Amino acid sequence: MSHPHPDLGPPPPLPAGALRIVALGGLGEIGRNMAVFEYGGRLLVVDCGVLFPEPDQPGIDLILPDFDYIRDRLDDIEAVILTHAHEDHIGAVPYLLRERPDITVVGSRLTLALIESKLTEHRIQPVKHEVVEGERHSFGPFECEFFAVNHSIPDALAVALRTEAGIVLHTGDFKMDQLPMDGRLTDLGGFARLGAEGVDLLMSDSTNSEVPGFVTSEREIAPVIDDVFRRAEQRIIVACFASHVHRVQQVLDAADKHGRKVALMGRSMVRNMGVARDLGYLKVPPGLMLDAKEIEQWPPKDVVLICTGSQGEPMAALSRMANRDHPIRITEDDTVLLASSLVPGNETAVNKVINGLTRWGARVIHKGNARVHVSGHAAAGELLYVLNLTRPSNFMPVHGEWRHLRAHARLAALTGVPDDHIVIAEDGVVVDLLDGRARIVGAVKAGYVYVDGTSVGGVTDVALKDRRILGDEGFISIVIVVDSTTGKLTGGPEVHARGSGIDLDAFEAVIPQLEHALEEAALDGVADVQQMRRVVRRTVGRWVSDTYRRRPMIIPVVVEV
Amino acid sequence: MSHPHPDLGPPPPLPAGALRIVALGGLGEIGRNMAVFEYGGRLLVVDCGVLFPEPDQPGIDLILPDFDYIRDRLDDIEAVILTHAHEDHIGAVPYLLRERPDITVVGSRLTLALIESKLTEHRIQPVKHEVVEGERHSFGPFECEFFAVNHSIPDALAVALRTEAGIVLHTGDFKMDQLPMDGRLTDLGGFARLGAEGVDLLMSDSTNSEVPGFVTSEREIAPVIDDVFRRAEQRIIVACFASHVHRVQQVLDAADKHGRKVALMGRSMVRNMGVARDLGYLKVPPGLMLDAKEIEQWPPKDVVLICTGSQGEPMAALSRMANRDHPIRITEDDTVLLASSLVPGNETAVNKVINGLTRWGARVIHKGNARVHVSGHAAAGELLYVLNLTRPSNFMPVHGEWRHLRAHARLAALTGVPDDHIVIAEDGVVVDLLDGRARIVGAVKAGYVYVDGTSVGGVTDVALKDRRILGDEGFISIVIVVDSTTGKLTGGPEVHARGSGIDLDAFEAVIPQLEHALEEAALDGVADVQQMRRVVRRTVGRWVSDTYRRRPMIIPVVVEV
Repeated sequence: MSHPHPDLGPPPPLPAGALRIVALGGLGEIGRNMAVFEYGGRLLVVDCGVLFPEPDQPGIDLILPDFDYIRDRLDDIEAVILTHAHEDHIGAVPYLLRERPDITVVGSRLTLALIESKLTEHRIQPVKHEVVEGERHSFGPFECEFFAVNHSIPDALAVALRTEAGIVLHTGDFKMDQLPMDGRLTDLGGFARLGAEGVDLLMSDSTNSEVPGFVTSEREIAPVIDDVFRRAEQRIIVACFASHVHRVQQVLDAADKHGRKVALMGRSMVRNMGVARDLGYLKVPPGLMLDAKEIEQWPPKDVVLICTGSQGEPMAALSRMANRDHPIRITEDDTVLLASSLVPGNETAVNKVINGLTRWGARVIHKGNARVHVSGHAAAGELLYVLNLTRPSNFMPVHGEWRHLRAHARLAALTGVPDDHIVIAEDGVVVDLLDGRARIVGAVKAGYVYVDGTSVGGVTDVALKDRRILGDEGFISIVIVVDSTTGKLTGGPEVHARGSGIDLDAFEAVIPQLEHALEEAALDGVADVQQMRRVVRRTVGRWVSDTYRRRPMIIPVVVEV
Repeated sequence: MSHPHPDLGPPPPLPAGALRIVALGGLGEIGRNMAVFEYGGRLLVVDCGVLFPEPDQPGIDLILPDFDYIRDRLDDIEAVILTHAHEDHIGAVPYLLRERPDITVVGSRLTLALIESKLTEHRIQPVKHEVVEGERHSFGPFECEFFAVNHSIPDALAVALRTEAGIVLHTGDFKMDQLPMDGRLTDLGGFARLGAEGVDLLMSDSTNSEVPGFVTSEREIAPVIDDVFRRAEQRIIVACFASHVHRVQQVLDAADKHGRKVALMGRSMVRNMGVARDLGYLKVPPGLMLDAKEIEQWPPKDVVLICTGSQGEPMAALSRMANRDHPIRITEDDTVLLASSLVPGNETAVNKVINGLTRWGARVIHKGNARVHVSGHAAAGELLYVLNLTRPSNFMPVHGEWRHLRAHARLAALTGVPDDHIVIAEDGVVVDLLDGRARIVGAVKAGYVYVDGTSVGGVTDVALKDRRILGDEGFISIVIVVDSTTGKLTGGPEVHARGSGIDLDAFEAVIPQLEHALEEAALDGVADVQQMRRVVRRTVGRWVSDTYRRRPMIIPVVVEV
């Protein structure tokens, strides 16, 4: 299998007749999916999502793909195709459209409605191009055919790109529920037809490639939810993803059956379900819904609250309920249902929420003790079907961390894709499809772009490293004032420390050392501000390290007056 | 079920004939297990462990129980009984013995040997009292009977305490492997005999109370390890807990069978296995072991490396191999076996290690894709046996977070323990056993004591809060120098910022505002240093918040010259 060499150089110019593929996200990580296709000087983008930060990226709101690779070529972009409306596929669209607002945004009806409502918040009015499964649309040199796929949001699509270089099938995210709630199956017939025609490159969702077997049907969850409703004597609180229309539908159906009213809580939940309802994807029995503000006026036994916060997000209603920092006070009579997966990285946060709710007496039902969630991604057994039906000449696993990409590559090899036709690429690796072969030809920059508050890219990896040091060790700042003409110390040293856990009184011990060291430096006759800073940093750093075996950030400040 | 009221007051004096139980750790958390028993004015401590920090406790090395409750009564302690030698049961012993070095330390042969070798590093020579299962020993008014229990470390014990208040059975950590590697079963017969005699209070390990069914025998892992060895063509690296003698034994046996030499890596691994070997708990075939330094001289196909780092600890060899920051360079031929559980809170770190190793091509075998680990704690099905055999009058779940304590309490209720005889307590809650009833009577302080470098307790929750703010947002410090006689600004404002992601040049914008605000404050005629600080903090804080929607820590420094 071909995989990236650590010192890949910049790619050569794209040969005539070749299709170039560069993922700016989604390869080597779960999130910020974005693939850039290039043919004949024109670009087509598939998905443009965000990645959510990990604990070693403190304070960060979102992580975007780095648009640098396409920044000078924004005008060459024919369209951005969105396979579905999850944040890891659409979340970065507002940031891309800030750079060129009139890029055509292509997607299914629900996908476009959801991205449009999101863009409204960013005050952007997108140029939309709606497509339906089974249709073919051309965007410049790219002839695109769309296929229905089943996923944990309605109206998801796979896309096949036809150019002179061959046929590429990009599955997007998908699963293969054979009894889907909305009857919309992943179009394996279409995949088979494409396979018969000849798929030159398959790019397929690797998220669950390590999970053996098959994913249970979404339908199997309904009896579990029904059982929860049957047993619950008082209030029911359901937390799930704000875009999981089918899961919300199941809760609405159960509420209707058991004579309970439903209120939605959480901005994204209210917004998305409003869109889904308006377009008919969510069927709401008349008189079922309450406004969240009304819920306290109803007896607990007659209501269901559906909210966000299933990933332990600290500001979401659910976390605040767990901390007793919310008007809804959890009691021993409450039933809380976490009807969602546990996204890797959120384990600790979700555990805290479960413990908090349990502490106040709530009965918490979650993935760990009942089948209240099924994954939205095809497992290994199902991925084999797609490989066998499409019989691709070349295979490139997408949407996954290294462990998932490798596992998917092994599945492809088992179905007969030759090892040297399997390309494992990570973000930024340039893959050319030419003469029926996909090959790694170079790499471009594809680092993280951090969104923090209103700043995009302002927080760099250097700032994050500082944050990690500050977060682990705190800082000590030492201010001295020197006379700029004589170079003599006229004020300070004044010590400030936060997060270091070192008592300020303890610094008394280092002050004489410091004064002595500064004097000595001055005696050399070369005492300048730079050198004074060095002396302060060295003296205080050594003292802290010797005394406390710690390494807080040392900030020497020399003010000249 | 009785459970702690948020505003429990201090407990009343202990009535004559009553036994008092206060857990200073282990209730509401997995770790720092420590229970203090009091009878007739004397104290007995069972276990004294550490808790490992979570991501929201940055920079912390260890968390200890707060000894405040017993600090004035150290001389009343008859003994510290250690049920087994895991860190969460013995890790805080050095810190307790610092306060009174001659407390008798009670435990089995291996437990005492391991704590002794640990205490040697702290230059403490403990007063040891070795016990064997089946024996009875009295420590002051506490008559203790010890029972063999099976766990993921050899020679673990449960303990029954007899006083006039009744019989309390404390299980320690245990599982119920019916085919244990060393033939040492959890003594259910002994538990049954005690049950017939009348157990007044059962305190039982809740770690796996949410897990239905039964834990697979440790013996089932051997064929999996054998299979890994059979398939591995080149180097094998095994990571596991440094105290898991049986797991290491299985790896040694497999290495011996497949003609490989073994090297141990990691200080605690080398230390513990040395002790276990000396005492005959680890059986090492002659000529099998290599020194870790020799390993590079042998062909990869002939060696096995056993190391620590299975929890993704960043400084351990395994993490460094995953980051290519270790002399052992991972290649496509390597097989890495993570033969351990995934301790909650470490998911992200372990995932990073697996992805890192996979990136370099290693085949990584872990709990998620093969049965290479079984839990050390009895699951719900097994906990029911203990409840049914001991038929306790009162039940108090121990060793668990809230979710585990509640789940265990439910199991007890199902076996017939009356709801009002089940006591769910958290750390610091005081439980008295009197006249055959266990009741919550108050609470004492039982907060976290943080170890950071050489400091114990120096880092407080306030410092941690500062670290979280600094870690999320960084800081901005603004230094101004004022003439102490005139009150006039003579230097600065000089701005320093780290981790804020705000370009220093951007501060140009706020400097005039700041100067203006300081002037205005001075015009009031009340400008003092405190007020200047307030003005700086408010002005800069508002500017950052309006411009960047962020809240870095603002540190105003006013130096008077």
